[in-house]
Amino acid sequence: MKPLRIALALSLMTPFLASAHGGDHADPIRYRQSGFYLIGWHFEPMAAMVKGEMPMDTKDFAAHAAAVSAVAPLLTAGFANGPHKGKSDAKAEIWKNPADFAKKMEAFQNEAAQLAEVAQVGDTAKIKGQFMNTAKTCKACHDDYRKD
Amino acid sequence: MKPLRIALALSLMTPFLASAHGGDHADPIRYRQSGFYLIGWHFEPMAAMVKGEMPMDTKDFAAHAAAVSAVAPLLTAGFANGPHKGKSDAKAEIWKNPADFAKKMEAFQNEAAQLAEVAQVGDTAKIKGQFMNTAKTCKACHDDYRKD
Repeated sequence: MKPLRIALALSLMTPFLASAHGGDHADPIRYRQSGFYLIGWHFEPMAAMVKGEMPMDTKDFAAHAAAVSAVAPLLTAGFANGPHKGKSDAKAEIWKNPADFAKKMEAFQNEAAQLAEVAQVGDTAKIKGQFMNTAKTCKACHDDYRKD
Repeated sequence: MKPLRIALALSLMTPFLASAHGGDHADPIRYRQSGFYLIGWHFEPMAAMVKGEMPMDTKDFAAHAAAVSAVAPLLTAGFANGPHKGKSDAKAEIWKNPADFAKKMEAFQNEAAQLAEVAQVGDTAKIKGQFMNTAKTCKACHDDYRKD
């Protein structure tokens, strides 16, 4: 498995992923919130392991990191053609600064892919370091583009 | 990108993915429904292309197929340690027949991974055939294990 290649390949495809369709699953807000929920589910136990709140299990950590790197590239499609009407924590600034938002999203996708690769090696110190690199890219985007 | 390898690797990891944690994203029902929403978002335009309701765009189709194959292996974790309390279309039979449910889920994950691989080649006839193979695995599981 090559999470970096997958993430980059999917990232290149995301412009195609937001294509309109008339189905029951075409709400971009619910789409991106679904992606963030999956990411949160897998991110939280990694954070707990890094903080020592849960015992570090590198196999478990690697599985969560692989899952985050699989979902991260999809998020972009949920922000396309916005802003969208509906309850959302997304700031309008996302669509005022699309290049900066895309850059920050790509940074997260790339760091998450690197985390999945590092986690497969199982070196706890390196895992913790790359987890922090990844978490910083979450925060960078949330600080600018997520309400509170 | 090797969707089949990714799907199989993630599938092998799913037993680890449901590990308990005290975060804000620990609801297995919302987790699996989020995964199904992402899959639906990407599945519907593929269905529309196969049915001729949308023009077939093999690049677009391949992107959607890759996204489905990235998310499909994660679903399993949302059904672990159930049944779970909360609003859900999941039948209790899932946890009465775990081996059969796991077999049907794995069939979907494998066909979705194959669809992602076939879609990259761009042969419309083969894409349509593998899409139908994949759709059958959705239906097989929904017929037995999803409330209607």
